[in-house]
Amino acid sequence: MAEKLTRQSEDFSRWYNEVVQRADLAEHAPVRGSMIIKPYGYSLWERMQAFLDGMFKETGHVNAYFPLLIPESFLRKEAEHVEGFAPEVAVVTHAGGKQLEEPYVLRPTSETIIWDTFRNWIQSYRDLPLLINQWANVIRWEMRPRLFLRTTEFLWQEGHTAHATPEEAHEETIRMLDVYARFAEEEMAIPVIKGLKTDSEKFAGAVRTFCIEAMMGDRKALQSGTSHDLGQNFAKAFDVKYLSAEGKEEYVWATSWGVSTRLVGALVMAHGDDQGLVLPPRLAPIQVVVVPIYRGDEERAAVLEVCDQLGKDLAAASVRFHVDDRDQFRPGWKFNEWELKGVPVRIELGPRDLAVGEARVALRHNGEKQQEKLEGLAGRLPALLDATQKGLFDKALAFREEHTHTVDSYDEFKERLESEGGFYRCHWDGSAETEEKVKNDVKATIRCLPLDEEDEPGKCMVSGEPSERRVIFAKAY
Amino acid sequence: MAEKLTRQSEDFSRWYNEVVQRADLAEHAPVRGSMIIKPYGYSLWERMQAFLDGMFKETGHVNAYFPLLIPESFLRKEAEHVEGFAPEVAVVTHAGGKQLEEPYVLRPTSETIIWDTFRNWIQSYRDLPLLINQWANVIRWEMRPRLFLRTTEFLWQEGHTAHATPEEAHEETIRMLDVYARFAEEEMAIPVIKGLKTDSEKFAGAVRTFCIEAMMGDRKALQSGTSHDLGQNFAKAFDVKYLSAEGKEEYVWATSWGVSTRLVGALVMAHGDDQGLVLPPRLAPIQVVVVPIYRGDEERAAVLEVCDQLGKDLAAASVRFHVDDRDQFRPGWKFNEWELKGVPVRIELGPRDLAVGEARVALRHNGEKQQEKLEGLAGRLPALLDATQKGLFDKALAFREEHTHTVDSYDEFKERLESEGGFYRCHWDGSAETEEKVKNDVKATIRCLPLDEEDEPGKCMVSGEPSERRVIFAKAY
Repeated sequence: MAEKLTRQSEDFSRWYNEVVQRADLAEHAPVRGSMIIKPYGYSLWERMQAFLDGMFKETGHVNAYFPLLIPESFLRKEAEHVEGFAPEVAVVTHAGGKQLEEPYVLRPTSETIIWDTFRNWIQSYRDLPLLINQWANVIRWEMRPRLFLRTTEFLWQEGHTAHATPEEAHEETIRMLDVYARFAEEEMAIPVIKGLKTDSEKFAGAVRTFCIEAMMGDRKALQSGTSHDLGQNFAKAFDVKYLSAEGKEEYVWATSWGVSTRLVGALVMAHGDDQGLVLPPRLAPIQVVVVPIYRGDEERAAVLEVCDQLGKDLAAASVRFHVDDRDQFRPGWKFNEWELKGVPVRIELGPRDLAVGEARVALRHNGEKQQEKLEGLAGRLPALLDATQKGLFDKALAFREEHTHTVDSYDEFKERLESEGGFYRCHWDGSAETEEKVKNDVKATIRCLPLDEEDEPGKCMVSGEPSERRVIFAKAY
Repeated sequence: MAEKLTRQSEDFSRWYNEVVQRADLAEHAPVRGSMIIKPYGYSLWERMQAFLDGMFKETGHVNAYFPLLIPESFLRKEAEHVEGFAPEVAVVTHAGGKQLEEPYVLRPTSETIIWDTFRNWIQSYRDLPLLINQWANVIRWEMRPRLFLRTTEFLWQEGHTAHATPEEAHEETIRMLDVYARFAEEEMAIPVIKGLKTDSEKFAGAVRTFCIEAMMGDRKALQSGTSHDLGQNFAKAFDVKYLSAEGKEEYVWATSWGVSTRLVGALVMAHGDDQGLVLPPRLAPIQVVVVPIYRGDEERAAVLEVCDQLGKDLAAASVRFHVDDRDQFRPGWKFNEWELKGVPVRIELGPRDLAVGEARVALRHNGEKQQEKLEGLAGRLPALLDATQKGLFDKALAFREEHTHTVDSYDEFKERLESEGGFYRCHWDGSAETEEKVKNDVKATIRCLPLDEEDEPGKCMVSGEPSERRVIFAKAY
């Protein structure tokens, strides 16, 4: 804690790496591109999992588990899929002391092995919809790894569903996109834009890919979750048919959707500041840290007794708290540490506070500090945490709005993107060529065609060709 | 459901494979030795995870995540460890389209990568104890795979802890053994024997391995969990030292402990019968199934209305229930299916029951059926489920006791083991030679030196050499 964090404005990327490591979220592993998720970081993921898993079950999904190892030939059955994933796979060629007859790839995603299985699970319309989710690790060989954002191995969930009609599959795609958006906004306090990916950005094997896009603290976009309408691509590749109520044999319709440990990175970059992490109360492993202040044994005993009682009251109020009674560190050092770790609320308790029956309460997300009556304090904390959660979301939303620009001139777009970053609502002619040109010119991509963007006829800022509505351009992770 | 299950007495192993697959727990994957865990089987594992994770946290452990891929050189750092695991590992030689400079093995267990990490996490006595758990998949190339019992890939948890003294490490080893025993007995309703493994059966790299052993329905033993005292073996191999309070640099002391999806196999084999699974209420995904009985639409409507109300009452009583209102199957067919799936309680509701305000309640574990007043039925279910849980445990305990024999003659041991199976409490001289001889003679192993076995001087049944107390011999999975 001795050395200060790099400031965000100085080097955001370096700030990110420092925060992730100093706040004990994760560290680099002695395995290329892999990370070790430390207990503090893992507990964030655990809480995310619990919320998401509950939402998946509420929407009728059940969990299952499919093999990590996939026969190499499976990957080749869907043409776009293999093209997209083949360059990233890791291959097992030897096992049990022998060379394998057919190599296995480590799953980069599980469509192939799951659709091979669905062929046996689906016979009639009564077997549909089939709504499966899997919590698993996946491996994609990363050339430019970054902790949480792009790692060779990451943890995720992947939903895989089968439906009788394209309408039902589409509904499911949107239902799960909504689940992701609600999770991001309500639990992570991160506002997101729901939208459709352009063809060049869609999942390898999908008909359409929907996504949620969030703005990070450096005004770049982070794709935070995707939901794919797979059409009949995988059903045809793996010959999965069902007998309809009318007795006709039909290929089934598919979706898949996933979010990963990348969300931990989103949390860091969306809310963090120059002091470190800023965690939303609903996900924070520790919501309230109590720091006793004292000199000498007598004061120590008096203060710790009150801290103990406060701890009991916080536990009774279902607040996740920690009393930092370590003797070897001074209060100021502890303040810094818990700020670095993003704990939403800090309560300081010293002899002068005790004398007047008060405590000092500091909020992490806006730096506000005030004296509070000790009496009933624990009972007021849940409401304070709710207000903090909301405050954090509002702050992130205001930030995104401040840095979202409606621009019609390509020159203005290029200039502002370079100088101030942010999201740009612009007209686009719908062509891959224009998309590619922008990418080459300024490294910005079309993040999505927002679902709630209103019709507004206009002209493409690059080509001048007609456009029906605006799309979002931004630099992205 | 058309074909009857193979009877246990006819071919237990075939019965097991049929039950696991027909009850929708798991199926073979198109990947050698791997399985697909189906939703019904996975929900058992999920419930096990939830209970165990809670117990780990109550005992002060936190979760973290370490890489699947381990540099091959790590495995070689602990001599016994590599000897034990090298023959079973799968090796990644290519990734991202290139041959790797150093191959990676897929973790067969994570001591090496974790102790390589602990070197950086541990500096002083203040960093100890370090109490880490990981939920993960592991890969061990299996020559004779069996669903859940031995699969190339399996899911498990592995605890890895570091301590300042050998006494603390030993305490931890026993604490987690106790957690496993309590989980097996309280949640799985399976009585277990806690004991010490002989040197020939201990974990590769451990000083001592403790285990819990359970008796299956064919009277064979299944090792259901292990807890290892690793001494300083891994600390020395990975150079993990700490500075004591007295300022001395010392190697730390280690433990590791794990249970896996093998426990699902234990559940099947410990309680199952000729009709299929028998699940303990505390783990059953569905605790109560309600089967409506009717002919024609009028009866159907009347019966389903009562079923609906019963469902609401069961939900209010926190009972996990399912109303099987499928039209395409007859009640008898449904009874068989839910018996196969091991649902603890079945409630049958037909017009004649309704007329007298009653329902028929059938218990899976002992086949008892009786008429029950509908009024207040849902409210009485939790107590009935508790009684069922206890009844199942008592039944398993009585079965184990009936098939545990105290024998002093090697001829009697051999003869009875072959003819009736079971556990044998016998004297053993403590030598690996005797152990090996018994294994070669009758394929039985020393399951453990039970911790609660009393001192009883005697003579080894094989060599006649002195023995201090009895050990457990049995055939095992």
